[in-house]
Amino acid sequence: MSDSSRAVRFSAFGEPADVLTIGDVPTPSPGPGEVLLRMRARPVNPSDLSMVRGRYGQLPELPATPGLEGVGEVEALGEGVTTVPVGARVVPLGVAGTWAERVCAPAAAVVPVPDGVGDEAAAQLVVNPLSAWVLLTEELDVQPGDWLAQSAAGSTLGRVVLQIARARGVRTINLVRRAGQVEELRALGADEVVVGDGEAAVARIREITGGEGVAKAIDAVGGAVGATLAASLAPRGTLIAYGRLSQEAMPLDTGLQIFRGTTVRGFWLTRWFQESPPEHVAATIATVLGRIADGAIDPPVEARYDLADVSAAVAHAERPGRSGKVLLTG
Amino acid sequence: MSDSSRAVRFSAFGEPADVLTIGDVPTPSPGPGEVLLRMRARPVNPSDLSMVRGRYGQLPELPATPGLEGVGEVEALGEGVTTVPVGARVVPLGVAGTWAERVCAPAAAVVPVPDGVGDEAAAQLVVNPLSAWVLLTEELDVQPGDWLAQSAAGSTLGRVVLQIARARGVRTINLVRRAGQVEELRALGADEVVVGDGEAAVARIREITGGEGVAKAIDAVGGAVGATLAASLAPRGTLIAYGRLSQEAMPLDTGLQIFRGTTVRGFWLTRWFQESPPEHVAATIATVLGRIADGAIDPPVEARYDLADVSAAVAHAERPGRSGKVLLTG
Repeated sequence: MSDSSRAVRFSAFGEPADVLTIGDVPTPSPGPGEVLLRMRARPVNPSDLSMVRGRYGQLPELPATPGLEGVGEVEALGEGVTTVPVGARVVPLGVAGTWAERVCAPAAAVVPVPDGVGDEAAAQLVVNPLSAWVLLTEELDVQPGDWLAQSAAGSTLGRVVLQIARARGVRTINLVRRAGQVEELRALGADEVVVGDGEAAVARIREITGGEGVAKAIDAVGGAVGATLAASLAPRGTLIAYGRLSQEAMPLDTGLQIFRGTTVRGFWLTRWFQESPPEHVAATIATVLGRIADGAIDPPVEARYDLADVSAAVAHAERPGRSGKVLLTG
Repeated sequence: MSDSSRAVRFSAFGEPADVLTIGDVPTPSPGPGEVLLRMRARPVNPSDLSMVRGRYGQLPELPATPGLEGVGEVEALGEGVTTVPVGARVVPLGVAGTWAERVCAPAAAVVPVPDGVGDEAAAQLVVNPLSAWVLLTEELDVQPGDWLAQSAAGSTLGRVVLQIARARGVRTINLVRRAGQVEELRALGADEVVVGDGEAAVARIREITGGEGVAKAIDAVGGAVGATLAASLAPRGTLIAYGRLSQEAMPLDTGLQIFRGTTVRGFWLTRWFQESPPEHVAATIATVLGRIADGAIDPPVEARYDLADVSAAVAHAERPGRSGKVLLTG
């Protein structure tokens, strides 16, 4: 391998178009217990862009390389590594800086990718399929016949939610911004699609659920959209906030909350990793990889860009109405 | 007893001063299984006034008599009643319309008041001491050494919270509107008093808790005050909303919620009554009556008005900065 490798870098927090650059950095060398990965693909996730803008729950020291997930091939082993061979395709967990040609990762923190799982699904395993899986099965414990409402239904995570819900017999109500998304989401298995937010959307969700409201909901948007889902909860219902794409506070009607005994809770996969026993994390990831291999979960991809075209990739990723994730390759 | 009894009435939802009247109604007659109570005292609670204004979770058919709690003496027994004697002092549970001279209640729904508990404490047993007790011990499971933050600390419920917290070794941070309340609350056992809301109050709460924030909080206000408490939560902390005195939505920062894994949940004592096993309700009320009898809980009273002076009583109850509950007597 060469002495230098390409990497996306930023040395100040700000708009990605202003602060991201591509350049050569010294190829990292795996320390004891580490492996060197030649990355093959990584998604452009909203959390990556939040971090570049300095608005994430954990911020790196600068300069830094963005990217919180991806898939790579083991290219070299550090001292004492026996658990993973050179040539293995793996997903590194909890390793920041994946928007680079090469990264080092603790051997204990890489998950081998089964043959039945392609690079494009493996690259985005954690932030979307795993998050969706934990949200639905652990945070909300969805059951067949439940109504589940979600915002940002057209997002990658939203589409994976539709896939998991369908496989589990959960009925979904999907809040979207534009009427143009309705047919596409229905084709993906959405039971109901509601356009817009506010009182009309709340009334429509109540109508769909026979006046009861939804027992369970997830929100990626915050602001008025999140408040619409909160106001649509059935008595004792729960809304999990997992994103705040609007960057706006959610105007929560605590009067409704009081009379209905409803809950709004935050969810961050990083905390789930920190607080879950390692065996549980491993078992859950294995389950999700199995669902990808058998086709029940199929995270969509809309476009691929070489690392060198990171600006175009980011611009594409922030375009509304995408049908899948933007990947960085090369 | 006379054929007619006095009662506060309203025949339209609106401002209490506009819609409440006092007049004579036929004395009710206890049906089978019921007792007739000669009421001795009832508090003017915010929930009573919300109901008169048509803004409560359950609204009566009109015309109606306000009042959701109080203490009375059994004056007559309906057919088949053997569990409670004439002359007993009792608190009726779940009986609306206590702002009357006489009300009927199911014998199964009245709680005898022990000799050590006076009328003025018994009259306000449910909405304040019982709510505070359930909030702290069941909803939040407070433990010695915990930090608990509350808004509306000067309210009757807030003062009872201070009493319960002190008896349990829980440290309190009390959010108030006016600096004038600080000394009084400290004298009542408040560990810390923070004046105002917003960023400065959040920073002060973080400072008091060594940067961590509070694990547990209760909010009676909503709006910016509730949002201040939500933003002051420690990782995995919980805020219980039990009132919305501001009538404003709580601008919830779901970004903080996500990164800290915090929860905002609504609590309504009516739902607790509906969802708790009757034996648990009875045992909890007995425990709270015991704490009142032994002096650990002493709900404060600021003023007493005859039923005929209901307008003055309501005006007094809505004055800011009271030191205790306004009771209706007679």
